[in-house]
Amino acid sequence: MYEGAVQDLIDELGQLPGIGPKSAQRIAFHLLAADPVDVRRLATALTEVKDKVRFCRVCGNVTQEETCRICADPRRDESVICVVEEPKDVVAVERTREFRGRYHVLGGAISPIDGVGPDDLRIRELLLRLADGVVQEVILATDPNLEGEATATYLSRLMQPMGVRISRLASGLPVGGDLEYADEVTLGRAFSGRRLLDV
Amino acid sequence: MYEGAVQDLIDELGQLPGIGPKSAQRIAFHLLAADPVDVRRLATALTEVKDKVRFCRVCGNVTQEETCRICADPRRDESVICVVEEPKDVVAVERTREFRGRYHVLGGAISPIDGVGPDDLRIRELLLRLADGVVQEVILATDPNLEGEATATYLSRLMQPMGVRISRLASGLPVGGDLEYADEVTLGRAFSGRRLLDV
Repeated sequence: MYEGAVQDLIDELGQLPGIGPKSAQRIAFHLLAADPVDVRRLATALTEVKDKVRFCRVCGNVTQEETCRICADPRRDESVICVVEEPKDVVAVERTREFRGRYHVLGGAISPIDGVGPDDLRIRELLLRLADGVVQEVILATDPNLEGEATATYLSRLMQPMGVRISRLASGLPVGGDLEYADEVTLGRAFSGRRLLDV
Repeated sequence: MYEGAVQDLIDELGQLPGIGPKSAQRIAFHLLAADPVDVRRLATALTEVKDKVRFCRVCGNVTQEETCRICADPRRDESVICVVEEPKDVVAVERTREFRGRYHVLGGAISPIDGVGPDDLRIRELLLRLADGVVQEVILATDPNLEGEATATYLSRLMQPMGVRISRLASGLPVGGDLEYADEVTLGRAFSGRRLLDV
């Protein structure tokens, strides 16, 4: 509908996840009116992210070095590995300040519908990290959905003979939530996972 | 939270309209995993839109030439001008295929809250287009909201002495809509603007 470069930009923006044709148009016109310096900075950020960012040799997290900040930090506990699906899950766990161990990023979850099998994930790399006996516990922190649960089950079976403790994040009612609005599966998990109170 | 280039990209994406921190993160990781060629194409589209696109000398629409496609088209009726707020409104009107005249893009609407006054819009350029007497009718197609109505009222008063016919787009029930869900202002407009049926 638009001429040349405007339509090209709308088309390119429309390819991004969560951006429909209307948002793409809105962003394009915002950029048309924006300071050229700002637009150039966005273009540079796009190029740099592909040039500079790679995946940590050890854990698979995003990094600009050979190993990521967390793997390179000697203060982090080497005996516990938290297994997550994506780099953004590392950020989510870090934000809790509850965990001082290391991470392992799988790069997704097992999902036959999307054609993602165990071989597409960084599972071999995880098993290699368990080989030297330093790791005592593996916390499976994959998403609490169908794919994440399937991946956790698969990994726990695989690691069973290796003599490490394997745990899974607790499921239950979200803090600040409302019991009335909890779905039955979550509420069921909250019951089966109930804890005795020390009074 | 992330290292260098990833965080830079998330920050830049978060500046775009309608993109919050979560969407910015999602898009950044999508781009990290995407084909470098696709990312480079998006970066190029961003740069090109600033380099190539300008505003039509006559109507203010976006174009890559001196004048836009519509102003350059001799088949378009010179005697009617449709006044809109933004270039995207031109596309919306064009899509109806109801209008074969020319456009005038104001570049916004009068909005004292946002500090946009008449001098910030392309109003002088509109009046200049009326000077040679070719234009017979001006259709005010600004948005049917507070700012758009104010702008239409302002323009109609300004053009009154110039002897052109001034019209405003009809307000009423949206086609395919539901009378029950129409707000009272729209429904009121639909009553006051009712048309006799020729049976």
